[in-house]
Amino acid sequence: MLVKKLDDIRASDRNVVTDGWESARLLLKDDGMGFSFHITTLYAGKESRMHYQNHLEAVYVISGTGTIEDLDSGRTHRLQPGTIYALDNHDRHIVRPETDIVTACVFNPPVTGREVHDETGAYPADTA
Amino acid sequence: MLVKKLDDIRASDRNVVTDGWESARLLLKDDGMGFSFHITTLYAGKESRMHYQNHLEAVYVISGTGTIEDLDSGRTHRLQPGTIYALDNHDRHIVRPETDIVTACVFNPPVTGREVHDETGAYPADTA
Repeated sequence: MLVKKLDDIRASDRNVVTDGWESARLLLKDDGMGFSFHITTLYAGKESRMHYQNHLEAVYVISGTGTIEDLDSGRTHRLQPGTIYALDNHDRHIVRPETDIVTACVFNPPVTGREVHDETGAYPADTA
Repeated sequence: MLVKKLDDIRASDRNVVTDGWESARLLLKDDGMGFSFHITTLYAGKESRMHYQNHLEAVYVISGTGTIEDLDSGRTHRLQPGTIYALDNHDRHIVRPETDIVTACVFNPPVTGREVHDETGAYPADTA
C-alpha cells in the first residue's frame, strides 16, 4: 500500500509549475498502478490549449469554474464542481478557467514524469 | 470527448448505495478509458473492510477524515483532504471514517458496473 500526501508532493520534484497551471503528480508510472493520478490547478484567466496524442486523460473538477472547448466538435461545455471530462479520442481542446480550477486528473498510459514538454506540446516552449 | 456531471450520475443506475458507502461511477469500462473513475462517499462511523483481489485501486480524499488500516503490514494511516492511498498489491484494508469521507477512486482494470458483489466481497451479503 502506498500512502502519500498532497502537501509532500507539492514540495517535491513531482510538482510541475507552468505559467498556466501546476500539477502535483501523486502517482506516476513508477508507482505501478497502470495509470497516473495528478492534482492539477488551472489558473484563473489562463487559457490552456492541449492535445495529448499519446495518452487518454480524464479530468474531474473538484472546485472552480470555467469552460472547455472541444476543437473537433466545436462544442463548449461548462466546467464546475462535479463535472468530469474524458478525452477518449485524444481530443484537441481548450480550457478557459474563470477561477482557479482544482482537478483530479488520470492518465492512461501513466505519465512517467519526464515528458513535461510532450504533455504541453501545444504550449509555447517558454511557458513550459 | 465525454462530459458528465456528478448529479446526473447520482440520479442514474451508475450510482450504487450500500449501508457503508455510496459510489457514483462517472467512468466505467464501457467508456473506453482503460480505468474507471468513481466519486465514492464513505459514511461517518461505518467501518469498511475491503480486499480487491482483481483490481488495483487508488483513492484520493477530497473531504473528510478517518483512518485506513493496512491489514498486511498492520500499519494505520491518517486520512484527510489531500491524502491518497494506492492499493498496489491488492492490499487487505479497513477504512474507518470519522466524518463522511468523499473520495475520487480509480480502478485498473476498470469496473464494469456489474461486479458489485465482487467489489464488496468482504462485506456481509446483507449490507451490500
